[in-house]
Amino acid sequence: MAVASKTNPSQPRHARDVAHWDLETDVAIVGFGGAGGCAAIEAADAGAQVTIFELASASGGSTAMSSAEIYMGGNGGTRVQKASGFEDSTEDMFQFMMACAGPQADEAKIRNYCERSAEHFDWLVSIGVPFKDSFLDERAIMCLTDDGLLYTGNEKAYPFNTVAKPCPRGHNLYVEGDHGGPLFMKIVTENVEKRDNIEVHYEARALTLIVDDSDEVVGLVVRENQQELNVRARGGVILCAGGFVMNREMVAKHAPKLTRGTEAIGNPGDTGSGIQMGISVGGAAINMHEGFISLPFYPPASMTYGIAINDKGQRFINEDVYHGRLGDFVLRQQSDRIYLILTVEQYADYETASYLGAPVAGTGETVEELEEELGLRRGSLVHTLATYNEDCLAGEDTQYHKSAKWLQPLEAPLVALDLTPGRGAFVPHFTLGGLDTLPTGEVVNEQRDVIPGLYAAGRTACGVVRRAEGYASGMSVGDATFSGRLAGQQAAARRQG
Amino acid sequence: MAVASKTNPSQPRHARDVAHWDLETDVAIVGFGGAGGCAAIEAADAGAQVTIFELASASGGSTAMSSAEIYMGGNGGTRVQKASGFEDSTEDMFQFMMACAGPQADEAKIRNYCERSAEHFDWLVSIGVPFKDSFLDERAIMCLTDDGLLYTGNEKAYPFNTVAKPCPRGHNLYVEGDHGGPLFMKIVTENVEKRDNIEVHYEARALTLIVDDSDEVVGLVVRENQQELNVRARGGVILCAGGFVMNREMVAKHAPKLTRGTEAIGNPGDTGSGIQMGISVGGAAINMHEGFISLPFYPPASMTYGIAINDKGQRFINEDVYHGRLGDFVLRQQSDRIYLILTVEQYADYETASYLGAPVAGTGETVEELEEELGLRRGSLVHTLATYNEDCLAGEDTQYHKSAKWLQPLEAPLVALDLTPGRGAFVPHFTLGGLDTLPTGEVVNEQRDVIPGLYAAGRTACGVVRRAEGYASGMSVGDATFSGRLAGQQAAARRQG
Repeated sequence: MAVASKTNPSQPRHARDVAHWDLETDVAIVGFGGAGGCAAIEAADAGAQVTIFELASASGGSTAMSSAEIYMGGNGGTRVQKASGFEDSTEDMFQFMMACAGPQADEAKIRNYCERSAEHFDWLVSIGVPFKDSFLDERAIMCLTDDGLLYTGNEKAYPFNTVAKPCPRGHNLYVEGDHGGPLFMKIVTENVEKRDNIEVHYEARALTLIVDDSDEVVGLVVRENQQELNVRARGGVILCAGGFVMNREMVAKHAPKLTRGTEAIGNPGDTGSGIQMGISVGGAAINMHEGFISLPFYPPASMTYGIAINDKGQRFINEDVYHGRLGDFVLRQQSDRIYLILTVEQYADYETASYLGAPVAGTGETVEELEEELGLRRGSLVHTLATYNEDCLAGEDTQYHKSAKWLQPLEAPLVALDLTPGRGAFVPHFTLGGLDTLPTGEVVNEQRDVIPGLYAAGRTACGVVRRAEGYASGMSVGDATFSGRLAGQQAAARRQG
Repeated sequence: MAVASKTNPSQPRHARDVAHWDLETDVAIVGFGGAGGCAAIEAADAGAQVTIFELASASGGSTAMSSAEIYMGGNGGTRVQKASGFEDSTEDMFQFMMACAGPQADEAKIRNYCERSAEHFDWLVSIGVPFKDSFLDERAIMCLTDDGLLYTGNEKAYPFNTVAKPCPRGHNLYVEGDHGGPLFMKIVTENVEKRDNIEVHYEARALTLIVDDSDEVVGLVVRENQQELNVRARGGVILCAGGFVMNREMVAKHAPKLTRGTEAIGNPGDTGSGIQMGISVGGAAINMHEGFISLPFYPPASMTYGIAINDKGQRFINEDVYHGRLGDFVLRQQSDRIYLILTVEQYADYETASYLGAPVAGTGETVEELEEELGLRRGSLVHTLATYNEDCLAGEDTQYHKSAKWLQPLEAPLVALDLTPGRGAFVPHFTLGGLDTLPTGEVVNEQRDVIPGLYAAGRTACGVVRRAEGYASGMSVGDATFSGRLAGQQAAARRQG
């Protein structure tokens, strides 16, 4: 049995127990990553006095550690989409994102995200985020060139390509290499710093919320310089404190499937403290079981010509999907091993350009030899490959609908990579659950009543992205920045209203 | 945006707003099903004044609607296990239940459940629950005879049979037909009624909890005869209000996979109000995404000779598993259709003795004909059956490890039943998430600190049962009655302490 510590995020402080307000502000923001930064800018531009409390000694959060691709489109297309020759419809974007989120989709939130996506692009440009008007036509996980646009999800893969017309929506910052995240946060930080009505407290740990006798959130307790400060927030508190992937106890309790991942993606502050603070005042935490969990089997893109199989020798997915979707389907297999079967030529590509880290599980001069080496049942892989190769020659994957572009018969000699989580391959993962919010960023309780004075954005909230199987790169930073902006606007308006 | 109603389970009332206590008791219990009834008996026997508030006009809850099998064993065996020739070890039971719960297992809770399981059996006998000392050696979903013991889960199936020595632990009440639930609740109700220190209020709706200024739960608000009553509970409130399967909004939000079920199993009171009350005072809700979801493809037991396939013609499970495990694996398939392939003799059994309701999807004088009729890729089912039949003749299922007992070659003519959820088959489901509690029944917050004065048991809590893929019949009533007892003891002790 745990003993309650004096001040922890699971137990709010009552305003009646606050003898003195050490600080007062209009809008208090917990966390200075992409969500918190955008929230601050919007709240400040609406005239509010804003104070950001950041645990670390610098801004950044997980956004700075990411590639900062930003998922945007619809509305006929962003400037970059149009310049690259893509016309994107809001309805296509909406249908695609609804399919990504599946039964747990928040329709109102997705609708709002899609309808205002072009406006969000323009806002980002207005604060100085640079995008080049060019398209990278590559199957990549991140953009290592300075191109402005690429496909970053399952848009072209079955079954998503039957739901909506594919269109690339991953917007990449105008910078060479994987440096989008640091550049993005540099721009956001400069925007924050030049606004006189935003104050940033670094090395400031938010400990718990403060509620009044009407159960409104009226402030928070912060520890700075080894002192606890009672902070009054007249408009409200916006929680932008990230997810909970670094809190292994919470991950095991809430998102058990992520325990099969090898590499937690996030910053050390992703301990779930923001989510816990929200829960402590009655906020509903939703979708807590879901997370992104991936086997980044490409690049090189030629890996897509391979087939993924389980220990029955069966395929189980179209291999032209986004890597996170493959990861999710790997976890569903009742199988001790998962393999990627490649030709020796493809394996040569793998050796030079992959960072997957999957060891070689077996090789075979013939399919039968590989079967034996992998301990597969005699005839199982032979059958799978015979079917697959026949389909390749006919130009149609009759079983899993991999697109014709990626169909090439796999002829021996063959190599099998071991994709099994826990046996060497890199399995990055992060959480997708958080506080339930309205599109405005207002945190709601289980009955979806608003908790006055409390807002959440970014990974602390449960946003538009809901499932590993429907994830696309750019949806996290897209959601964080967009939801942060709306929460900032809303909290500022509350203080004025 | 929802508007807050005056009194709802998501917003606790504050004791300072209570002008007058309409009722006072030691232990207030919400819900008179199996958990609430057992909680009341134990609290009363510990000397507490107990008041039960039941929404319906009679006791029963979901326990009365169930078969009331009770999952018990270990400790060398219960009286019925021993008399039936089974010696059960606590360690086997523990390892099995840990495997059932998987990564989200609550080890302390499962350990406690197993170690005290024989004592729980004795207690049930002591209050008059009758069990016959006999074993039903049948693969059944429920016991239609009056036998006292049967296998009710995956104990004998791969991979569970590699983790622990199989032993039957489903205890069935001494009554013919599927009448265990009503009999069980009749006995519990008589026990409640004969205790002078238990008062039962029927048609009494618990509206919300009452907390004092130290955030202790000190009572609850109840509506009776169109009046709101403030009830003070000196020892605490025990929430035994069932799960949330009847609240379709909560199911969609928290347990999206259950939306593929066709029949919600529970009573109309399973609206999640107990869970919501717990959340409103900071209780952590865990495992909310999980639920039991089944395709009850047996009885007749001979269905187990069949094979389940997806629309790629692939098997995906050992068909000797518990029906709920099949249900869970069906949902993992990326497949528009799921079929059960039977011989015509097996189909004749199905027609006479099944209540699955799965329509015939196709028939074939040859495997090729069936393949074509089902629209499967040419050669896919041919290959699967060739492999399977070869394995049957050799006596070993090399792919899915169905036990040798159930291996019989499937020879044409063949029949395919359509198991696809939503196409006719009966798909029962219920929720397995709820408030996080210590083994004592004390509700804890996200940091696992106890919320003073609040207890939960049965489906309102998240108990020993955590996953569809590891469910066994009898685990729900077993957990409800056992956890109810412990919560009753604990709440009674708190009032005295």
